[in-house]
Amino acid sequence: MDIRTINALSYEDFVAYLGNVVEKCPIITAAVWSRRPFANLAALEAAINEFIEALPESGKEGILRCHPDLAGRDLQSGTLTTESREEQGQAGLDALEATEVSRMARLNSEYKERFGFPFVICARMNNKATILRQLLERLGNERAEERARAVDEVKKIGHLRLRALVLTDAVNKL
Amino acid sequence: MDIRTINALSYEDFVAYLGNVVEKCPIITAAVWSRRPFANLAALEAAINEFIEALPESGKEGILRCHPDLAGRDLQSGTLTTESREEQGQAGLDALEATEVSRMARLNSEYKERFGFPFVICARMNNKATILRQLLERLGNERAEERARAVDEVKKIGHLRLRALVLTDAVNKL
Repeated sequence: MDIRTINALSYEDFVAYLGNVVEKCPIITAAVWSRRPFANLAALEAAINEFIEALPESGKEGILRCHPDLAGRDLQSGTLTTESREEQGQAGLDALEATEVSRMARLNSEYKERFGFPFVICARMNNKATILRQLLERLGNERAEERARAVDEVKKIGHLRLRALVLTDAVNKL
Repeated sequence: MDIRTINALSYEDFVAYLGNVVEKCPIITAAVWSRRPFANLAALEAAINEFIEALPESGKEGILRCHPDLAGRDLQSGTLTTESREEQGQAGLDALEATEVSRMARLNSEYKERFGFPFVICARMNNKATILRQLLERLGNERAEERARAVDEVKKIGHLRLRALVLTDAVNKL
């Protein structure tokens, strides 16, 4: 799908197509539809990131709280979004040993207790070893520093989701 | 459920419980969790409304675009959220005659074409006659005026959803 096609979408199709670029936050995609036309995919991505940055800190925390735990309950019960399932699978989080699952659960709980939001990381850019290492490291951050770091990860996830949706689709349509 | 119980909820339970007070915008509920403890239900509602009001105009339009059409495709195909299904049903929109369905579809299309977001009204405070009349009237509004009007309806819907969830649950638990 090229940018002209995207710019011509109704808000309903735009949201149906790109509504989960930020996990469970279709309001963000729906809001940036107001900013079309976009010169290119990077401009659409920039509009999404500007919207996120303009939110109050509570709103950024709200975005984080819409994310599932890594290797958590939603993965076990099959209730992840399509995008999250693929991402966690690609990082190997759907094939952990029992001891790894319980270690991840313990660290996720500790993180959520400390920060009030879940540990968010771009799983596609990591594997289970680097995810565990960063979870341990980031547990030592201050709250504001960690919130900003987690929001950066949201943007990385969005970057890859957007490209996967738009570019894969373009290839399929050739 | 009383306010002390609500204030003691983890963000996960809070969002699971109240995440659809604003249709398909769990980010809003998730954001206001940062503002707890709430003195009472009205204070929680006020926090939600303050969050909405602090959004840029595109963000308010984003909220509106997360709402389904009244008597539209989602109602026909059974893909409304639980809350929307009950609200549209109570207003009689699930029992329209074919001519009424097509009239509503035509007016919804005209409205979306004009404003770039769907017609939002608190269905529980209306019936099919008043909904149709207001749809016709509001089609004559200017865009900014109509956006503000629609956001007011979002707040009315949220007010009733919040009370239904919290107070009904309180009765069930007696």
